[in-house]
Amino acid sequence: MCRWAAYTGAPIFVEEIVSRPGHSLIHQSHCATECLSAINADGFGLAWYGEREEPGLYRDVMPAWSDPNLRSLVAQVKSRMFLAHVRASTGTATSRNNCHPFAVGRWSFMHNGQVGGYDAFRRDAEMLIPDALYPQRKGATDSEALFLTALGEGLATDPRGALERAVAKFEALSRQKGAAPHIRLTAALSDGVRLYAVRYATDDHSPTLYHRWSPTRGGRAVVSEPLESGECWEQVPPGSFCVFENDAVEIVPFCPAPLAAAA
Amino acid sequence: MCRWAAYTGAPIFVEEIVSRPGHSLIHQSHCATECLSAINADGFGLAWYGEREEPGLYRDVMPAWSDPNLRSLVAQVKSRMFLAHVRASTGTATSRNNCHPFAVGRWSFMHNGQVGGYDAFRRDAEMLIPDALYPQRKGATDSEALFLTALGEGLATDPRGALERAVAKFEALSRQKGAAPHIRLTAALSDGVRLYAVRYATDDHSPTLYHRWSPTRGGRAVVSEPLESGECWEQVPPGSFCVFENDAVEIVPFCPAPLAAAA
Amino acid sequence: MCRWAAYTGAPIFVEEIVSRPGHSLIHQSHCATECLSAINADGFGLAWYGEREEPGLYRDVMPAWSDPNLRSLVAQVKSRMFLAHVRASTGTATSRNNCHPFAVGRWSFMHNGQVGGYDAFRRDAEMLIPDALYPQRKGATDSEALFLTALGEGLATDPRGALERAVAKFEALSRQKGAAPHIRLTAALSDGVRLYAVRYATDDHSPTLYHRWSPTRGGRAVVSEPLESGECWEQVPPGSFCVFENDAVEIVPFCPAPLAAAA
Amino acid sequence: MCRWAAYTGAPIFVEEIVSRPGHSLIHQSHCATECLSAINADGFGLAWYGEREEPGLYRDVMPAWSDPNLRSLVAQVKSRMFLAHVRASTGTATSRNNCHPFAVGRWSFMHNGQVGGYDAFRRDAEMLIPDALYPQRKGATDSEALFLTALGEGLATDPRGALERAVAKFEALSRQKGAAPHIRLTAALSDGVRLYAVRYATDDHSPTLYHRWSPTRGGRAVVSEPLESGECWEQVPPGSFCVFENDAVEIVPFCPAPLAAAA
Repeated sequence: MCRWAAYTGAPIFVEEIVSRPGHSLIHQSHCATECLSAINADGFGLAWYGEREEPGLYRDVMPAWSDPNLRSLVAQVKSRMFLAHVRASTGTATSRNNCHPFAVGRWSFMHNGQVGGYDAFRRDAEMLIPDALYPQRKGATDSEALFLTALGEGLATDPRGALERAVAKFEALSRQKGAAPHIRLTAALSDGVRLYAVRYATDDHSPTLYHRWSPTRGGRAVVSEPLESGECWEQVPPGSFCVFENDAVEIVPFCPAPLAAAA
Repeated sequence: MCRWAAYTGAPIFVEEIVSRPGHSLIHQSHCATECLSAINADGFGLAWYGEREEPGLYRDVMPAWSDPNLRSLVAQVKSRMFLAHVRASTGTATSRNNCHPFAVGRWSFMHNGQVGGYDAFRRDAEMLIPDALYPQRKGATDSEALFLTALGEGLATDPRGALERAVAKFEALSRQKGAAPHIRLTAALSDGVRLYAVRYATDDHSPTLYHRWSPTRGGRAVVSEPLESGECWEQVPPGSFCVFENDAVEIVPFCPAPLAAAA
Repeated sequence: MCRWAAYTGAPIFVEEIVSRPGHSLIHQSHCATECLSAINADGFGLAWYGEREEPGLYRDVMPAWSDPNLRSLVAQVKSRMFLAHVRASTGTATSRNNCHPFAVGRWSFMHNGQVGGYDAFRRDAEMLIPDALYPQRKGATDSEALFLTALGEGLATDPRGALERAVAKFEALSRQKGAAPHIRLTAALSDGVRLYAVRYATDDHSPTLYHRWSPTRGGRAVVSEPLESGECWEQVPPGSFCVFENDAVEIVPFCPAPLAAAA
Repeated sequence: MCRWAAYTGAPIFVEEIVSRPGHSLIHQSHCATECLSAINADGFGLAWYGEREEPGLYRDVMPAWSDPNLRSLVAQVKSRMFLAHVRASTGTATSRNNCHPFAVGRWSFMHNGQVGGYDAFRRDAEMLIPDALYPQRKGATDSEALFLTALGEGLATDPRGALERAVAKFEALSRQKGAAPHIRLTAALSDGVRLYAVRYATDDHSPTLYHRWSPTRGGRAVVSEPLESGECWEQVPPGSFCVFENDAVEIVPFCPAPLAAAA
């Protein structure tokens, strides 16, 4: 399990989400409260959108709290759209290429959760990635494979559908060769224009997902757990796909169709 | 506050102390129980004695639990004397040169605790280091400065006296320019022949210090907190200096003499 | 292109190969002479055999010349069989999981060379790795994929044949989807008992491969370029598979059979 | 010896200096031509000024050419004033805190050159740093000590004078306790408003220093060696202190006054 926070709206210094709030993402890297592991110290990452179509990407393997580069970067960089993540490995090595977010072209993606028994079918899962995207496979995580599979399923034109199809394929593999719980996931993704988030599980234990519009800031934070206590955060129900654009929120069902076989 | 474990006796794989026990040092790197911070993830280090007079030294900035090099090294290396440390920074940067143990010539040294208000007199403390030892000053910690000062006070010929004099000087600086609590320290050090440990504080909160002889193993572990519950560990009283050689234990008072001024 | 050196014989400090000779492996990390890139600074690695069946593994992403951990390790560790490597990336990321040697069970493997147009068929190459070995796929290099494929082809019982079959499959993929030159390779591998090396290319530019028995040391070094000028090194001819056991050398042809299709 | 490049002018993507030119700073990290070591791979750093008074700081220990974070950062960040550096250690450890630039408050500083026999008087040199600045002493380089000494000499109000006094003190220490050549230095520094550079040596071998105004870009690059061959770069004569503000250049003599004794 990991923790993450995303933002879309008027440009703000990234530190306003990542390090300044009382229960900021960096605070959550050693004191998370709404997930199994309080410690999320197996690397971190930031994808931010600025003047280019492609996001900037900064990832490293130290705990987020101990990296002076990160502290400096989030204090300097203003962004209208960014994704930030602190990692608690569920087994895969601590390496930069296994840190979230992942970025391909204009898209960035980060994930919290698990795919049950993934080690038993990692090879099958990687086979779901199309040849054209395979050079983007840099690490060994289920998360990166899911992202690349979703890109192959048409993420650019049909984000919800593509992600449903990708998750359905992973779910089928887990049912066939893996173990329960098959899928527990929250994820955030962006093309630099809209911010998307999803909350889904094959059992009753969906990871939590919240969002909050700040009128003073003119932007919205989307998070795996609230950044401040005492604030009013809206919880997204399980089985939801969210589209955040400017101050608008659209929340629709997220229903990966059961598949007979995976590949 | 940090956690550490040392060993002297018949050669064992280092992992028998560092990673195998139920509450091994690596377990303590995320779940320490007898110190303020449960998380000791700001780097780690190992000094071990083998076929040379000088110890080997392996230190890195990741959490100890996530470094495959460490896992491999402690599974391969057998040693009759070693010091291992997991770090929780009290402010100084997470960098290899700030990781314990420190090693100079045949000596190695590691430390847990604090020197009150150190930042206000770091320059004075570094001035206590003799010119000949100054090239060994690699990082910025109070611990390394204390070790080098003790070496300058004659650690090689009078370990207890030299450490008392060094601590007295640091204590005087803290009283003069720093803040309470002035000194809280446990430390372990070795010349490759004997293992020494010290427990001391200027107030009633000495960090804990334990040791235990294993007859099956033919060796002794000296630790900041026990490696297994249910075992019988002997606690060292505050204000003690310990000498461990073969199966013998000598525990004598550790009494840094009050000093009027530091430098 | 990379540089590497291996040793088998009476136990020696690893530094006697890695850092002490005039043109040691660390010297070659910035001044290699017999390959295209003089600089091999994209990480390094060491696999050594000691008291266990499995080798120890130490790899990191810095240049070999600047890592104090490596310097200390090779000064302390004595080994009767080890493989050491300095890397010049041909495109893949500089990450620990992309550093040689690779180790699975008792086997270790390191490689210098290229597989022509690998990016275009990496997915096909990874499909050659059997399911049971797939969890060992940690990085993204052609070298690791070749090693795992060879393990799947029966490296443990038929080293030459397994490596020939694995190389034949990679060669077929390169002819089908990649680019010339299809294969240029030297590699060293070991099961902890014997040291194997191979030199092969599909064109006239096999990377160099040398070995030399030292009677004073009682051991043999096998290298991609000589460790000292003025010494008498034997060059292995292209298309050779070498078995080094104690002071014996067996050199036989290495002839991957042409394959019609890859998978 | 190291290589560096600085820029002041209309905001540009940092990559236009650091990675895009034919002989960019990253190219110089493995193929420098105007200094003793062609390889400058012992870490790198970037200080850039954006919306805050203090610069952002990004430094790491890998070779500049192999860090994807750096590549992404310089492609995203636009800046009107920045300093970038690739390091070839002259002995000090490869660690982030030894990487240039150094930053304190609004000031940043980077250096190429040497202080003769520094190890013999490092302690004396550090004593030149005032107490108030001593907490900023993070590493062990002569460069950082020189910068902090210059800050203590009044860099903020009298840049040339403060740097002359600091260099004079280092030169006196080198003459007294060190070795020839006593000082060879080029350095660049900034308060976020002006860019300063200095070229000086106690012998005839000042490191090179060039600058060039780009009318198309509306900015000036100041470098240790030209970024493109075929362009017209102006060389700064030895013993010079340069002030670059907007498109204006002021070059005045830099004459550290001989000192009898250092401290």
